[in-house]
Amino acid sequence: MALIVQKFGGTSVGSVERIQNVAQRVKRHRDQGDDVVVVVSAMSGETNRLIGLAKEISDTPSPREMDVLVSTGEQVTIALLCLALQEIGCAARSYTGAQVHILTDSAHSKARIMDIDHARVCADIKAGRVVVVAGFQGVDQHGDITTLGRGGSDTTAVAMAAALDADECQIFTDVDGVYTTDPRVEPQARKLNRITFEEMLEMASLGSKVLQIRAVEFAGKYNVPLRVLSSFEDGGEGTLISLEEDVVEAAKISGIAFNRDEAKLTIRGVPDHPGIAYQILGPIGDANIEVDMIVQNIAHDDTTDFTFTVNRSEYNKALSILEKISADLGAREVVGDDKIIKISLVGVGMRSHAGIASKMFETLSKEGINIQMISTSEIKISVVVDEKYLELGVRSLHDAFDLAEESTA
Amino acid sequence: MALIVQKFGGTSVGSVERIQNVAQRVKRHRDQGDDVVVVVSAMSGETNRLIGLAKEISDTPSPREMDVLVSTGEQVTIALLCLALQEIGCAARSYTGAQVHILTDSAHSKARIMDIDHARVCADIKAGRVVVVAGFQGVDQHGDITTLGRGGSDTTAVAMAAALDADECQIFTDVDGVYTTDPRVEPQARKLNRITFEEMLEMASLGSKVLQIRAVEFAGKYNVPLRVLSSFEDGGEGTLISLEEDVVEAAKISGIAFNRDEAKLTIRGVPDHPGIAYQILGPIGDANIEVDMIVQNIAHDDTTDFTFTVNRSEYNKALSILEKISADLGAREVVGDDKIIKISLVGVGMRSHAGIASKMFETLSKEGINIQMISTSEIKISVVVDEKYLELGVRSLHDAFDLAEESTA
Repeated sequence: MALIVQKFGGTSVGSVERIQNVAQRVKRHRDQGDDVVVVVSAMSGETNRLIGLAKEISDTPSPREMDVLVSTGEQVTIALLCLALQEIGCAARSYTGAQVHILTDSAHSKARIMDIDHARVCADIKAGRVVVVAGFQGVDQHGDITTLGRGGSDTTAVAMAAALDADECQIFTDVDGVYTTDPRVEPQARKLNRITFEEMLEMASLGSKVLQIRAVEFAGKYNVPLRVLSSFEDGGEGTLISLEEDVVEAAKISGIAFNRDEAKLTIRGVPDHPGIAYQILGPIGDANIEVDMIVQNIAHDDTTDFTFTVNRSEYNKALSILEKISADLGAREVVGDDKIIKISLVGVGMRSHAGIASKMFETLSKEGINIQMISTSEIKISVVVDEKYLELGVRSLHDAFDLAEESTA
Repeated sequence: MALIVQKFGGTSVGSVERIQNVAQRVKRHRDQGDDVVVVVSAMSGETNRLIGLAKEISDTPSPREMDVLVSTGEQVTIALLCLALQEIGCAARSYTGAQVHILTDSAHSKARIMDIDHARVCADIKAGRVVVVAGFQGVDQHGDITTLGRGGSDTTAVAMAAALDADECQIFTDVDGVYTTDPRVEPQARKLNRITFEEMLEMASLGSKVLQIRAVEFAGKYNVPLRVLSSFEDGGEGTLISLEEDVVEAAKISGIAFNRDEAKLTIRGVPDHPGIAYQILGPIGDANIEVDMIVQNIAHDDTTDFTFTVNRSEYNKALSILEKISADLGAREVVGDDKIIKISLVGVGMRSHAGIASKMFETLSKEGINIQMISTSEIKISVVVDEKYLELGVRSLHDAFDLAEESTA
């Protein structure tokens, strides 16, 4: 008999009928003999409806009161799901974040979980009840309601699983698992049976938006086996995300992530002296613009070129800041391009297999795709190319690394 | 500088615009130098929307989960009102029932307030903040969310006022005060400036639905001056409800209440022996039917007639129970009438003024209105008459007791 934490997102509980389906699914699992703790989000659309009400009142609403407001969304879902479970003869009890003492810091709207008091939950499990917990929310040391930010329900589920030492944390989503790449771009994309936490982190942060990054980090830190499953199809195995040593047949490459939201800025002919990177990126950071890739090439003639990418929506803002910096520093010019995309190969096997990078570059070159920037980490290689090459690049790499086939090592 | 608790019901906070109006009103009061604690209900329609969702799932929803569900209604309002207050430069902080430790018993959906921990509220008041508290809800000793039942926000406001030793508890409603009778029935009805707790209790329980009975009881018990005001009109004095000794010019009669929801049942020729009342009303009470007036006349020929009234919606249920009782007891027959109404004269002055009852009966008799039942208490006289006489009865009594004129003693 295992203890399973199951998390259902907003789409999965988006209507009374869907909540009833979730109840059926939870009960089936329960009937197999497992103990189940369920974490749910607000019904889809509800959080936006509440934020809309607040926006009618204020453009700069107090984060404390916003958390009081939006946390009602999950509270509605936990009550309805318990009613649906009880209606089909499955004992259940609901808890808000505050009730189950999901203690967080006081950073409203983006709080971090510090502790969970699981005494009541354990007592309910022992009494044979399904426990339904509101995701996304907690309470700080003053008793104020906090929220973990969008997608925080995943984190709640993982944190509950860690606190309860659960056997598995299952995240039900609208996809049936993690794929080698986006099937809308490459129809040959294959569902992965297993992937490591590290790979998942790279896949998630690079644009395969299946799981919240913080939840994956948390799961990795506490070694909570995480499974992504479809909430609409039954019987699938989904994708299990776990420690590297548990993944017996590690593939060289697990998947290909990409990001369409990138824009590139270059400041040319900057005097090459210490502190130059800070002088350029300081003002960008001060303007709350997040920088993704950064590339600086070796200097010649005492000047250097400095290139970085930002989210496409902040391209114009970044450009005007950079032009001011360029004037201050006496740089030659500022150039930019917001018609670029990033493609990344991800895989823990990369560590022990040479030649992955060269094979990647060769593949792209054969297709006539010019690489504008390169950045690497231990388990990923990212390239920036013209946006028109997205599909061609992803498909040719998917093919070159045989990702459509089940890996054989 | 006074401490005022102000309560706004669902209609007063029924839209973002209305919430903004409430914020303006609270701020004006605050700017006059008073400390203000605000208690609010759910936005009108919201509680019913939530109950509707639950009813789609279950016909017999768990009271615990229903309280988790519907308590979100007020939580949305407190957050929005705080945002609206802050937006106009008025420091404010919201609290749910659980956060301000409105400790209740565990009777979900009809819990009773046992204690309030006002430490945090006092600290906020001291810091110059308006405190906004969710009405209608509390928390039991296990940390479970409870609700006080419909209209419970009035009780929350009075309980907060009592706990904080507030100078006045102001209940904002869609009427501008308590009237001598319903102005829709008697256009001459006059707004009362003052009324005693006892009179208000009789008026409320007899069908003038301005305030929740329990709130008036609570206010009387803790001597919290209670003022009923219009939330849509500004500047009115409303009606102040307070102790009898504070009402200097006590009128003989304060008002005329009536109730259209009555039905009458009589069991005839019951053997007159001890315990007969219990044998009749026991099964009625067991069926959760509330009995209002009870009249038993003296016996003759060792049998008696026993008459009582119930809510009209329970007439048929009560009738069938009574027929079974009649057979068991060997009574002569059961008769009933669901076309009756009750009219009541209310006033503390009645205690010290003889002749009120006879004047009432004389007035009705002059209009040819036959009195079917009479019941009296220290400060009220109620009669049951045919429902067709409602308007005629109320208007003739209103006129006979000069209620349209300001009282001169």
